[in-house]
Amino acid sequence: MKPVEWKNGKVRFLDQTKLPIEERYVETDDEEVLARAIKRLSIRGAPLIGIAAAYGVVLAANRISGSSEDNVSSRLERAVNVLLATRPTAVNLSWALDRMGRCIRESKEKSIDVLRKRLEKEATAIHEEDAAMCEEISRRGAALLPNGAAVLTHCNTGMLATGGRGTALGIITMAWEQSKLKHVYINETRPLLQGARLTAWELQRSGVPSTLLTDSTAGFLMQRGAISSVIVGADRIAANGDVANKVGTYTLAILAKHHGIPFYVAAPTSTIDAHTPRGSDIPIEQRGPEEVTTIGGIRIAPEGVHVYAPAFDVTPHELITGIITEREILIPPYLDAVRALDRSQMHSAKLHAVED
Amino acid sequence: MKPVEWKNGKVRFLDQTKLPIEERYVETDDEEVLARAIKRLSIRGAPLIGIAAAYGVVLAANRISGSSEDNVSSRLERAVNVLLATRPTAVNLSWALDRMGRCIRESKEKSIDVLRKRLEKEATAIHEEDAAMCEEISRRGAALLPNGAAVLTHCNTGMLATGGRGTALGIITMAWEQSKLKHVYINETRPLLQGARLTAWELQRSGVPSTLLTDSTAGFLMQRGAISSVIVGADRIAANGDVANKVGTYTLAILAKHHGIPFYVAAPTSTIDAHTPRGSDIPIEQRGPEEVTTIGGIRIAPEGVHVYAPAFDVTPHELITGIITEREILIPPYLDAVRALDRSQMHSAKLHAVED
Repeated sequence: MKPVEWKNGKVRFLDQTKLPIEERYVETDDEEVLARAIKRLSIRGAPLIGIAAAYGVVLAANRISGSSEDNVSSRLERAVNVLLATRPTAVNLSWALDRMGRCIRESKEKSIDVLRKRLEKEATAIHEEDAAMCEEISRRGAALLPNGAAVLTHCNTGMLATGGRGTALGIITMAWEQSKLKHVYINETRPLLQGARLTAWELQRSGVPSTLLTDSTAGFLMQRGAISSVIVGADRIAANGDVANKVGTYTLAILAKHHGIPFYVAAPTSTIDAHTPRGSDIPIEQRGPEEVTTIGGIRIAPEGVHVYAPAFDVTPHELITGIITEREILIPPYLDAVRALDRSQMHSAKLHAVED
Repeated sequence: MKPVEWKNGKVRFLDQTKLPIEERYVETDDEEVLARAIKRLSIRGAPLIGIAAAYGVVLAANRISGSSEDNVSSRLERAVNVLLATRPTAVNLSWALDRMGRCIRESKEKSIDVLRKRLEKEATAIHEEDAAMCEEISRRGAALLPNGAAVLTHCNTGMLATGGRGTALGIITMAWEQSKLKHVYINETRPLLQGARLTAWELQRSGVPSTLLTDSTAGFLMQRGAISSVIVGADRIAANGDVANKVGTYTLAILAKHHGIPFYVAAPTSTIDAHTPRGSDIPIEQRGPEEVTTIGGIRIAPEGVHVYAPAFDVTPHELITGIITEREILIPPYLDAVRALDRSQMHSAKLHAVED
């Protein structure tokens, strides 16, 4: 099962809004179809939307007919902007589009065919690197868990959210393969129920023993001593270690602190935004009221009710035990850890440029 | 709108499972129909199920044909047991049935007609007393709120849950009438969405400005300073002040503590169970998995997923700022407060017996 796949010049993606009822795949060669799929959460998960957006740029390049330099530039710029505007919170989206933008600039004097090949190579690299990052995150994270761990997770951070086995959920499935994991508790994750629809579906397919909870039940389980660790993903991590993630994450972090349970965030370093100083600087996407007032078209609240529906919340760094990345596990003080990571990344980027 | 009404020897009740889509009333003279309605939450809310169960005993008495003493006793005993078995957590149910049982014992040597009249009088008294208790709770609670209060509440504790204006929600509507209240935030209250379906509906009818939230959003609003007080109801209060209430209450109490926000419980003294020493002694009802995995018949999780669905959780007394009853506002240490209340109640019960 691949939630996003590059196939004969097209993108084939799984429409995740149909899960778990139906496993429906869509093929497109149109970046605007892809952008709409990201916007309506057919494709979701911070790393995966970065991957999909990168492929979107390739689709746009392939659809350009003429080849005057201006035409190519303006068409690709427009495509990048359409893709960038789909979701405001996850930084992986702008990170992937930045990489694609760099390719476009670097290939400016090359032919359109060379540019197309270069863009396809870059998008495929972003995809493959993400799969490798998932393995590294999972390996590092699984090593942190105690034997017989009972892990609580939120939203979906698995195969459906990434280019590989996942971040938080990748850790969970790897710990299961290593016989370290006893049980997984899944927050259903209202309003869009990614936990109930997607994580429960993935874990069932993987044969990992799991239990579904309403988001309000986690505290009760912690009180009864049933949870040994909480692991969640991230949509953007500020320079000081504050984490924007699916709404409800902040509540879990406070619950974990109250019960003395370690609270981990798992994400690739591409999720760290060293240019955003604090969590309060992260833009928080607001979703439409109908995502709260209806489920599957069924109305569950009175007509005309006022709704407040942020898609994400911000967990302050002081509630986070550790941030598990593919390069290392960041621990407080996060500001120093992020700076050190940023320096070593710039260093390796420079090395990379020299090798090229 | 009356959620339960005694009408020409029948009970007329609003089927709350149909709200907010449809306002459907059901009439019955059969206590077993009433018991099923309580079990499937057509009638719900701790005070209201006490009232409904009391009327159920009257229905059972009215349906007895012969009048041999044994027949009457055994029929009524069976009815009481059927009603008592509907829901295990709310103590108001057994409290109301105890009162009805006392009437039965006291009228043992009277005719069946006298017994019927006595039971009807008692059930009506329980209903009317509850309405009066709601007014007293609301008056005391509203006085506690600051001007311009922004209150967060959970589940439904209003007209639909009681014989009057409600407990926590009664405080909210009274504070609104007193122009003390700025806004109400409503937790949708998964799995059965009593907040979205019932509280939003009640507040809309009352014209109180309110906003609906998923249960995971409350923490984010507290972080942003939008909530001045949390008020919830209770299904059972132990002698030490621990409170069993709709699952999610415990999480709200921890969030309130973390943000330094007062956390109040509002309930009639009939909700206090002086015979249950601690919250951990309160039986917690488990609901069926389909309440989590389906909404309005629509499947939202994979077939066969394992679900943990307690209907209630227990909030330890140390997280509770005050318990607002119709007699007084209990404050810590609750063990002493509950004992004092119990003594004064026994005293007034004795006085009552003397007056009779």
